[in-house]
Amino acid sequence: MSASEFDLIHACFRKEARIFSAMTRVGNGDDASVHDVPEGQQWVVSTDTAVAGVHWPHDFPVAMAADRAVCAALSDLAAMGAKAHWAWVSVMASDESVLQDMGKGVTSALNRYDVELSGGDTVQSPLNAFTVTVSGLLPEGLAMQRNQAKVGDDVWLLGRVGFSSLGLNDWFSGVREGGFIADFQTIEPKLRQGESIRHLGVRCCMDVSDGLFQDAEHLCHASGVAMNIDLELLPEWADMVHAVGEDRATQAMLSGGEDYALLFTAPAHLSGLSSLAVKIGSCVKGNKVSVRLYGASVMPKQQGFDHFGES
Amino acid sequence: MSASEFDLIHACFRKEARIFSAMTRVGNGDDASVHDVPEGQQWVVSTDTAVAGVHWPHDFPVAMAADRAVCAALSDLAAMGAKAHWAWVSVMASDESVLQDMGKGVTSALNRYDVELSGGDTVQSPLNAFTVTVSGLLPEGLAMQRNQAKVGDDVWLLGRVGFSSLGLNDWFSGVREGGFIADFQTIEPKLRQGESIRHLGVRCCMDVSDGLFQDAEHLCHASGVAMNIDLELLPEWADMVHAVGEDRATQAMLSGGEDYALLFTAPAHLSGLSSLAVKIGSCVKGNKVSVRLYGASVMPKQQGFDHFGES
Repeated sequence: MSASEFDLIHACFRKEARIFSAMTRVGNGDDASVHDVPEGQQWVVSTDTAVAGVHWPHDFPVAMAADRAVCAALSDLAAMGAKAHWAWVSVMASDESVLQDMGKGVTSALNRYDVELSGGDTVQSPLNAFTVTVSGLLPEGLAMQRNQAKVGDDVWLLGRVGFSSLGLNDWFSGVREGGFIADFQTIEPKLRQGESIRHLGVRCCMDVSDGLFQDAEHLCHASGVAMNIDLELLPEWADMVHAVGEDRATQAMLSGGEDYALLFTAPAHLSGLSSLAVKIGSCVKGNKVSVRLYGASVMPKQQGFDHFGES
Repeated sequence: MSASEFDLIHACFRKEARIFSAMTRVGNGDDASVHDVPEGQQWVVSTDTAVAGVHWPHDFPVAMAADRAVCAALSDLAAMGAKAHWAWVSVMASDESVLQDMGKGVTSALNRYDVELSGGDTVQSPLNAFTVTVSGLLPEGLAMQRNQAKVGDDVWLLGRVGFSSLGLNDWFSGVREGGFIADFQTIEPKLRQGESIRHLGVRCCMDVSDGLFQDAEHLCHASGVAMNIDLELLPEWADMVHAVGEDRATQAMLSGGEDYALLFTAPAHLSGLSSLAVKIGSCVKGNKVSVRLYGASVMPKQQGFDHFGES
């Protein structure tokens, strides 16, 4: 076994993983990892899969795809207001050089956000793919959930939406630098900001991964409210219209996925939010999402990304 | 969206998942799940990926492959001596009917072992695959680890090895019933038994997924011991020799993967083990695994399954 699975996993992943949690009792390399949970804390878990040709173009650098996969998973912890601590990364890789690039991207992202690589799995497969499970901690009872919006709440957006989908379009058009390319290449999970808004008292939040309109509908459905969104209030609306025109900007901002902004609601009396996020609308009675542009009703042509969907 | 991703996930997975943990504070359907950990307990996590054409034949029923994928992951918790509570299941599925079969297999296995489906992800993809992350609880400091074997320990096997690989060979030969087929079709994670041997004082254990010889080497390497194994002591050795001859039996029992027996070591004074497992050898000074058949040295031709390996 000159370059066995076990040596490769060590070289590509474990050797480069530099964060070790003081709460980990059995780390990477046994059948499972074992962790302490401090009193008064709850543990939070999420998992995300990314597949070549679905979540990134086949000619996109695989190390970047790996970095994105980790950050997309971490974004779910941000949306709960959790502090990220641990990750388990399973990869399907077509050959050793792909595996090496995957290792670079995975460990770079984990090290950047101080997250421990606690385990994983490696399989040779014709298709390249990642499943990233992430975990962190939350003070008891303070998780931000998507079912906590109340009629009368303001609706906030932390981060931008629409830019990643324009970057992906640029990529498919052959652009490799400039334009919106950088907005697709990297994801910034809003971990620090998620904790900040939780500290400020926010109790309803989700991350926007499948498009603002569709994800807002999920939040409304879970909470039993309707939502009005004013398109022109979205971060950098005017700039995007200037760059691509009103129709494309509308479509990108309402339906473009993969930006990983945080969508949250909060009662009007909560202070401190405007230094972190932008108020884009309000929660009202009903069960639908209504979008307006300078007061006129707007509907997205395509609602968002939907695996197995017919639209 | 007449049959959207979200409706399908609900119909195939959530609706059928019947176990709900009293420790879960936010369950399936939000960005992440949130769980309480009782005082004095540690939490244990493992993840496993199974891919069509690698872990099961393309013409194998996908519901059975799903059941196997869940059970293989749970086996890692059994090897730590943990009680299984939660699972997050990500599936890559080529179409809706495959997704439905996957849902059946996943929920059937989880319900059978009282494990909650706490989250997951669903992606349409040309290749069918699962990544199953499982989690459970352990009393503080009592995890069974592979690096705890001591010189002088007895070596034990809980469950059988070799039968699954013969079943897979049968499948490839066109057999669909009888022979060793049933041994490949289903996996029994030794969860109850893992907890039992932990209660009896066992501190060194791993599950045998890649072949007894190779996994025993990993245990020796982690613990800094050598191991002598007497082949004729392995469960059902004589029966297997009778069925397939000594050469094939040797190869299957030493190198055949996917049986998910537990390999553990224990000091000789520990009592109660022989009603659960079979003593197959002993730990000695050194760093290698030596196999004997009625006292004569035996070497496996192929050491075990190795993704990306050259052997």
